Amino acid sequence: MKYFALIVAGGMGTRMKTDIPKQFLLLKKKPVLMHTIQAFFSSDLKPEIYLVLNIDFHQYWEKLCLEYEFNVPHRLIKAGKHRFDSVKNGLNKIAGSGIVAVHDAVRPVISNELITKSFCVAEEKGNAVCAVQPTDSVRKQNGEFTESMNRNQIFLIQTPQTFDVNVLKKAYKQPFKVNFTDDASVAENYGLKINLIPGDVKNIKITYPLDILIADLYLSSNK
Amino acid sequence: MKYFALIVAGGMGTRMKTDIPKQFLLLKKKPVLMHTIQAFFSSDLKPEIYLVLNIDFHQYWEKLCLEYEFNVPHRLIKAGKHRFDSVKNGLNKIAGSGIVAVHDAVRPVISNELITKSFCVAEEKGNAVCAVQPTDSVRKQNGEFTESMNRNQIFLIQTPQTFDVNVLKKAYKQPFKVNFTDDASVAENYGLKINLIPGDVKNIKITYPLDILIADLYLSSNK
Repeated sequence: MKYFALIVAGGMGTRMKTDIPKQFLLLKKKPVLMHTIQAFFSSDLKPEIYLVLNIDFHQYWEKLCLEYEFNVPHRLIKAGKHRFDSVKNGLNKIAGSGIVAVHDAVRPVISNELITKSFCVAEEKGNAVCAVQPTDSVRKQNGEFTESMNRNQIFLIQTPQTFDVNVLKKAYKQPFKVNFTDDASVAENYGLKINLIPGDVKNIKITYPLDILIADLYLSSNK
Repeated sequence: MKYFALIVAGGMGTRMKTDIPKQFLLLKKKPVLMHTIQAFFSSDLKPEIYLVLNIDFHQYWEKLCLEYEFNVPHRLIKAGKHRFDSVKNGLNKIAGSGIVAVHDAVRPVISNELITKSFCVAEEKGNAVCAVQPTDSVRKQNGEFTESMNRNQIFLIQTPQTFDVNVLKKAYKQPFKVNFTDDASVAENYGLKINLIPGDVKNIKITYPLDILIADLYLSSNK
């Protein structure tokens, strides 16, 4: 079986109040994205790595790779307008059959265990999507107000989201919809049943400025 | 107008793998709970403070207050079986009219701004409940599988949850239900419309061991 990791770094980083996109911020003295790629490269099933990145940053990334002597082999692909287009561009570059793990570039604290589990479950069941449950109470918009929900029924979705590559390619042939916020929603709309697997609270998405320090703390604790 | 803060520390801390409950863990060299109480004591509207704590820890807490020379005036009340019973016990000790902010003891990174906003909105509209929106995709259990939800409609609920004290007392006269996970769900079941106000991503609930280090980081950044 062949394994692929599709690392998606489309974002321009507006929420971070930084000039450079979040995936390039320094975490333990190297760009976030290098941690993410390294995690997949070092993982047990040795996936081939595809990186989807906004074309405006391809040169910058290549410069960073030289500067940080980052030699992990990976194929660079240009991002699209939406995350949907970026994943689609990436999938189109993958040839042959296998299992693909789609992962956010800005989730650098991803463990070998979770990567491997995600590939194995997807191989067995067709897909595997990482999720954690909220520890807070949850409410849902209902007209002008909100109403209480049963939090035991709610799942906060992470990546990797891992699929049979040919099936996911077919799902991504659908026309784009605004509610396609992740691969699970695309696959579900195509008719697949989604298999959730337990994610990791440490597998955070770098979103706010202090998240870099939290990721640093988590990486240190995993050592 | 009178203002009350009802700090609820019922938990026994099983998720933390520590021997002592989370509210007593050390954060910047003093127990978490002292940060929480101090935040309300120092806040602009100077609420009267009521602390609900498991009876097994009353003596321990009094010893801690001596040891750390913690002199913030507060009334100590015994916790009940569920959070519902604890809040009810606390409300029953509050005499007179006013606005009460119910707050988790294990949310020590609560800002003066959010406390004050919560009291002011509750005074104007009857209640104010702090909430943040997820940055992850969200799914909901539906039978054996899950289905994608619109995350823009989902709110993760924090504390303080702030109400007219007499109205909240009446709501807490209802018989307990298992889906009463917070004050908003109790008040809603009593017939109130809940007013959400924007919470703070830093206002975390100490849940996992490393959350203490994250709270430390957030407290430092607020200074």
